[in-house]
Amino acid sequence: MNRGGLERLVDRLREDLIAVRPGAAGAPHDAVARVVLGAVAEPGDGVLGRMVESLGAAESAGWILSGRGATELVDALRQESAPSSRELTAGAARWRPRIDDAALARSLAQAARVGARLVLPGDPDWPVGFADLGPHAPLALWVRGRSSAVVASPSIALVGARAATGYGEHVAVEAAAGLVDRGVAIVSGGAYGIDGTAHRAALAAGGTTVAFLAGGVDRFYPAGHEALLGRIAATGAVASELPCGAAPTRWRFLQRNRLIAASAGATVVLEAGVRSGSLNTAGHAATLGRPLGAVPGPVTSPASAGCHRLLREFDALCVTDAAQMAELVRGHRPGPAGDDAPGSTHSSQRALEALTSHERRVLDALSVRRSRSVDELIRATGMASGPVLGALGALDATGLVARAADGWVRRRPE
Amino acid sequence: MNRGGLERLVDRLREDLIAVRPGAAGAPHDAVARVVLGAVAEPGDGVLGRMVESLGAAESAGWILSGRGATELVDALRQESAPSSRELTAGAARWRPRIDDAALARSLAQAARVGARLVLPGDPDWPVGFADLGPHAPLALWVRGRSSAVVASPSIALVGARAATGYGEHVAVEAAAGLVDRGVAIVSGGAYGIDGTAHRAALAAGGTTVAFLAGGVDRFYPAGHEALLGRIAATGAVASELPCGAAPTRWRFLQRNRLIAASAGATVVLEAGVRSGSLNTAGHAATLGRPLGAVPGPVTSPASAGCHRLLREFDALCVTDAAQMAELVRGHRPGPAGDDAPGSTHSSQRALEALTSHERRVLDALSVRRSRSVDELIRATGMASGPVLGALGALDATGLVARAADGWVRRRPE
Repeated sequence: MNRGGLERLVDRLREDLIAVRPGAAGAPHDAVARVVLGAVAEPGDGVLGRMVESLGAAESAGWILSGRGATELVDALRQESAPSSRELTAGAARWRPRIDDAALARSLAQAARVGARLVLPGDPDWPVGFADLGPHAPLALWVRGRSSAVVASPSIALVGARAATGYGEHVAVEAAAGLVDRGVAIVSGGAYGIDGTAHRAALAAGGTTVAFLAGGVDRFYPAGHEALLGRIAATGAVASELPCGAAPTRWRFLQRNRLIAASAGATVVLEAGVRSGSLNTAGHAATLGRPLGAVPGPVTSPASAGCHRLLREFDALCVTDAAQMAELVRGHRPGPAGDDAPGSTHSSQRALEALTSHERRVLDALSVRRSRSVDELIRATGMASGPVLGALGALDATGLVARAADGWVRRRPE
Repeated sequence: MNRGGLERLVDRLREDLIAVRPGAAGAPHDAVARVVLGAVAEPGDGVLGRMVESLGAAESAGWILSGRGATELVDALRQESAPSSRELTAGAARWRPRIDDAALARSLAQAARVGARLVLPGDPDWPVGFADLGPHAPLALWVRGRSSAVVASPSIALVGARAATGYGEHVAVEAAAGLVDRGVAIVSGGAYGIDGTAHRAALAAGGTTVAFLAGGVDRFYPAGHEALLGRIAATGAVASELPCGAAPTRWRFLQRNRLIAASAGATVVLEAGVRSGSLNTAGHAATLGRPLGAVPGPVTSPASAGCHRLLREFDALCVTDAAQMAELVRGHRPGPAGDDAPGSTHSSQRALEALTSHERRVLDALSVRRSRSVDELIRATGMASGPVLGALGALDATGLVARAADGWVRRRPE
């Protein structure tokens, strides 16, 4: 596609995006670029994510659409974390064959038809937790329903196997209803089995529930949950990073799971066999440093074996009722979305509230200007090296501290 | 009792003890003293334990029988850990009213009649793990059956509630039979419910099983388990620190639990409600640093709520089958007592067994010779900095790693 084609496409997208974004006029070009990028790349493409972090979405989309070589970007991408020339060339080979302006226009028309809205980083309804995904964060989110539901707080992801037993469904109903009673929003994947039962119980209890899909939000998947997903969108939200028209694939299911784990304050696996996809969501939650719970079941039931594995090998906390699940997000203040400025101040605030006394002492001993070594921290805090290292690890995971050349610094609230 | 009374008593005890001890001639006076002390003190009496640690059993028994005042011992008890004059006076007030030489003689006669043997510290059949109880270690052990069964290794305590469900009994049968298949001896408390089921399944599988009682071994308790305890004694052992004739009391049940936890290589709670006495055994195991496992069950079953509490609050490892239970004592070399000196090699081994997968990966990436930096560990393990630091903190706390000039090293086992 040549420059003229790109400009015409952008003009049309700009018009269409005005229809699908609430108050979108602010930054149409970024929005257009993110829509284009979302159409050509698979979810979680880290090379694209690092390019966007370095160049911005608009310049990244422009380069992809232009057909120019990687060498033209080398000067612009001098940061250590930026993709290499080789990565860009390989990326272009993935992305450029997918440029299809007719399909993109159809996707946007379809989004407008089903009333899907585009939510972008920096919007009040953009989950601050996505920032923890780094270069694997989504570029944009398509949402049907109430987009503020996506940032309802506190929230807990309730996930589990499609092949649920009566026991698992009982656990899911009790968990979702009990959490709704405690003001917690329920995030899940809209699938058969545990996911669907958790969504249904949340709706029945009058709560907010959010389903993340692995394909476009124009076509609800699975088909048997069309009515359920419609009810979820009626009071909560159905969301996806995939553009309308995109079909779910195995890869997209796995990547969808990272959005469930990153947007929720904690993840609880209610019932899962050892091969359940919900263990992938649990893995994302653990990697992101989110609290992870697992509900035990009879050791005679293979349907609970995945939960037991999480308890044994992944340090999941054993949770047996909604009160214990709610404790996983204790300290996360409920409140209307947008009350606090979104972004890292919000998440830093949350992180600060959840600090242990060890973490607080180590944080207080750090400066934003001068780095301190572990030895200096041991002397300054009067703590042993083990607790100091443990606290640094936790603070690092919440983004409150950063490693410097010869030690550690406190990160400035951004 | 005066000195003359004591001497006559000792003479008679000496004769009787020859009948009840295998090769007892070695140290009759110490044996006599321990029998006397066991008859006047309750199990786990720490003041008596510290007196015996300081003065020896013979002098301690002599002082109690003599009726002398605490001031006469003050010079002899100069060690910091020895009981104070006030503690001795209070102790004497507990112990001396119980001196009853006729009852003691009857107890020994009864022991001889039922074929009970006296096992003392230092005997090959004395569990080395009792040393971890410090001043609360038992003074002596009365054993019916094969006293070497008491030190069978590896061994695991399988305990649980009297009020067992069909699920719990199923778990107990599978656990005991599977552990016996793996050469593990089964230790328990001989009670109704989980304990009895575990003993029975161990016997049925042809394994070694040991029951610790809360009263004298002359009268099997509970009465309904007389036949079962007889079968246990026929191939394994029934043991108690209480003299023959002593009735079980609530205190003695709780103290009995410490012997189960201390003699076994690990403790597993198979099914227990929140008030089950087996949680007391689990508490002893945790205090002693023994591996502790708990079998989960349905969260809808109050009979499993104690197990879930152990998983949530006491860092018990989730174990779902005999293979996982056997892993709790992996590395504990079977062998007669005294083969290993207890101490740091033993405890490093234990620490190794308790590692998380993160800790294991970090430990494997470290060398005893060359130090590696945190950055190198991040690269070597493929883990993020937070988990690497967390694992280093935990490994540092257990003494498995040490900080070096420019990084970390694995510590040599001592």
